[in-house]
Amino acid sequence: MKVALVGFGTVGRSVYKMLQQAEGITPGLVLVLPEFYSAPFQTTDYNDILNDPETEAVVECITDAEEGYKYAKAALLAGKHFVSSSKAMVALHAPELNRLAREKGVAFLFGAACGGSMPILHALSQSRQMDKILSVSGVLNGTTNYMLDAMQRKGCSYEDALKVAQQLGYAEKDPTADVSGRDSLRKIMLACAVSYGILPVEGLNREGIESLTAEDVNHFAPKGLVCRLIAQGGKNEDGSVYACVEPVLFPKNAPECAVLDNNNLAKSQCLYNGSLVLMGQGAGGDPTASNVMRDLILIKNGLKNFLPESCEEGKANNEGGRHRYYVRLNAQDIDLFPAAETEMDGDICRIITSPMAVSRAHDAAKAIRSAGRKVFFAALAE
Amino acid sequence: MKVALVGFGTVGRSVYKMLQQAEGITPGLVLVLPEFYSAPFQTTDYNDILNDPETEAVVECITDAEEGYKYAKAALLAGKHFVSSSKAMVALHAPELNRLAREKGVAFLFGAACGGSMPILHALSQSRQMDKILSVSGVLNGTTNYMLDAMQRKGCSYEDALKVAQQLGYAEKDPTADVSGRDSLRKIMLACAVSYGILPVEGLNREGIESLTAEDVNHFAPKGLVCRLIAQGGKNEDGSVYACVEPVLFPKNAPECAVLDNNNLAKSQCLYNGSLVLMGQGAGGDPTASNVMRDLILIKNGLKNFLPESCEEGKANNEGGRHRYYVRLNAQDIDLFPAAETEMDGDICRIITSPMAVSRAHDAAKAIRSAGRKVFFAALAE
Repeated sequence: MKVALVGFGTVGRSVYKMLQQAEGITPGLVLVLPEFYSAPFQTTDYNDILNDPETEAVVECITDAEEGYKYAKAALLAGKHFVSSSKAMVALHAPELNRLAREKGVAFLFGAACGGSMPILHALSQSRQMDKILSVSGVLNGTTNYMLDAMQRKGCSYEDALKVAQQLGYAEKDPTADVSGRDSLRKIMLACAVSYGILPVEGLNREGIESLTAEDVNHFAPKGLVCRLIAQGGKNEDGSVYACVEPVLFPKNAPECAVLDNNNLAKSQCLYNGSLVLMGQGAGGDPTASNVMRDLILIKNGLKNFLPESCEEGKANNEGGRHRYYVRLNAQDIDLFPAAETEMDGDICRIITSPMAVSRAHDAAKAIRSAGRKVFFAALAE
Repeated sequence: MKVALVGFGTVGRSVYKMLQQAEGITPGLVLVLPEFYSAPFQTTDYNDILNDPETEAVVECITDAEEGYKYAKAALLAGKHFVSSSKAMVALHAPELNRLAREKGVAFLFGAACGGSMPILHALSQSRQMDKILSVSGVLNGTTNYMLDAMQRKGCSYEDALKVAQQLGYAEKDPTADVSGRDSLRKIMLACAVSYGILPVEGLNREGIESLTAEDVNHFAPKGLVCRLIAQGGKNEDGSVYACVEPVLFPKNAPECAVLDNNNLAKSQCLYNGSLVLMGQGAGGDPTASNVMRDLILIKNGLKNFLPESCEEGKANNEGGRHRYYVRLNAQDIDLFPAAETEMDGDICRIITSPMAVSRAHDAAKAIRSAGRKVFFAALAE
C-alpha cells in the first residue's frame, strides 16, 4: 500500500521514517509548502497526490484544522483512505468525514488524535461492537501531567513547573490549550464519538489546572492523594452522554498515580470486559507516528472506520454524574458547594462536598470567578 | 458472520452470551459432550459444524490441549477461521496451525490465550509490522498476583494467601501451574512467537512464587519494594530471543505496583513507540470471552493472523540479560551468587548481587535446591 503524506513536521518526519521500513506499506509523495520544498519525494501540489492512482492512502499531520479538513475531504472524494493525527480537525469534522468515507467505501481513521501512541480508539471501536462501554477516562495530556507530577513529587510551584515543561519542549510558549484542559476535552470528545456515535459539542464542562497551587498540593498530598487532570466521558442511565475535563484526586495505589512525567493513561470500563487501562507516551514525533502507522496496518488488514455508521454531533448531559469534590475557596463562597467536611485556614476554606453533579460544581466555580475571587476544585476518585 | 463454539464452560457460555448481541456476528452451533447435551443450539457431532456452509468461524474454549488441536486442524482444513482461548494448545501447536491457516487462506487468532481481556497479542502483532519490539513483559497470571498482593498489603503468609485465593475461585485445588510460573511462561512464549516469529521451547527459565515467605516480604517491603511475578521476553543483541518467568522487585511507583488483586499487566517496549502498558482482568469468563470477541471482530474486518508468515519453534538464550538479584539463602551457598551487598541474619543471608545472567541465577538456585536447601531470589527492576 502506497501512502502519501501531508505535512513534514515532527510527526510527518517520524511517519515517513517508519513508512520506509513497515511491512507491506511504502511511502509516496509528501506535500509541503513551497518555502519548505527540498527533496524530490516532496511536492507542493496536492493534485500530484490525488491524481496518482498508486497512492491508496493519505496521512495528514498538520496543525491547521481547516486546511486539514480540505485535504481530508479531497482525499476521500478521490477514493483514497485518509488518516489524520489532528484532534482539532477531527473534533470539528468527524461526522461529515465519516459519512463521506463510508459513501466512498474508503477508510477514515485518526488513532493518533487521541492518546498519542496508545491504541485507545482502536480498543474502544472494538469494544463498541461486542460489549457495552460504560465509561472512558484518562490522563490524556502529557504537558499538564508533567506539571502536576513535578508539583507533587518535586514540590514545584505552578509557575516553576510550567517553566521547566516549556524548557523541555513539553509545553508551548502559550500553554493555554494544555493547561486549560481544551486539548484533553477534544480527545474525550473523539472517544465519545467512537464509543457512542455522539460527538458532544455542547453542555461540556472543562476545568484545567491553572488554579492549583503548591499550598493545595501541600494540603492534600499528606492525606495520600495525588492530583491528575482527567478527561472523562460515558453514558448516563437515560442514554445521554456525559463528557468533562477536571482535576481528580486519586488514592496512592490507583493506576493514575503511576503515570509519571509526561506520560498518558486511558481507562475504559465495559460491561463484560471490565476495566482496561492503557499507559504510554501521549505525544512526541515517534509515539504519535506509531499510532498513525497502526491505523495504516489496520487499513491494510481491511479496517475502515473507528466511528459507527451513525455518528452525529450532540449535547453532553453532565447533570447525572455525582461525586464528591475537594474545594479550596474563600469562606464567603462556601454556600455554593454542599460541604460535608470543612477545614478553616484563616479566610481560606477547604471542604469535601457531598456528592454533586459535575455541571453544578463547574457552575459554582464559574460564579466565584466571575465575582473576581479564587477557587480550586478537584473531584475525589471513588 | 456465523460463529460455532467448541466447549460450553465458563468462557464458552460468556462467548455465547456476547455473540448474541455483537455487531454483525451471530452464534451458530455449540459442540458439547453427550453427557452435557441440553439444548437445540447444541450438538455432540463436530461434523455438524464443519459441514455447515454458513459457519465461517469456530471458537474453541476447552482445556484439553490435544482435543483442542484436533478441532483446530479440522476447522482450518474445512476452510473455517479458528479462534482459540487455550494457551496450552497454542503454545504446543502454533507454528503448524499458522502454516495451515495461511495455506487455507483463513484466520487463526488466539488473543484470549495471553493476557485474558487485554489486547496484548493484537498490539504486538501490529507493532511487529511497523516498529521494532525490544521487549515484552508483564504480570500475566492473576492467581499469583492476588497472592503476592495479599502477602504484601495484608501481611498474609504464603499458605493463607493461597487458601484465600482458592476460596475465591482464583486458584485451582492444585495450584501448581500458576504458582510455579508455568501458566505465565506459556503466555510469554506466545508473545515471543507473535513478536519475533520464534516460539521458544528450549532454554527457558522459570521461577514461581513458591519460595517466597512472609519474612522475605517483611524484609524488602520497608525498602519500598513490591514483588510481582514477571514473565518477560525480548531480543538479544545477537538476534536470539530470551524468555523467562521470575519474581521481580519494583520500586513503589512503578506501574506494576498498581496491579492489585488478580489483575494483570503487559508492557511492550518498542524502538519508536516507546513503552506501552496494558492493565486489565487476566482471567474469568467475561473478560476472556471479550478477547475472543475482539478476535472475531477483527476477523470480520479482515485480519487473518497474529503470527508472522514464518514462525518456528526455537531455543531461548537467557545468557544475555544481565540484572541484579535480591537473594535470600543459607550462608554456605553464598558463593553461588556474585554478592555486591550482604546482610546476615543468623545463618540466613540476604544479598544483592552484581548484574548476572538470568540463566546463571536460575541455575544457582537449582543447584542449592538439589542439595536440599532453600533459596528465594527475585530480580531487581532497573
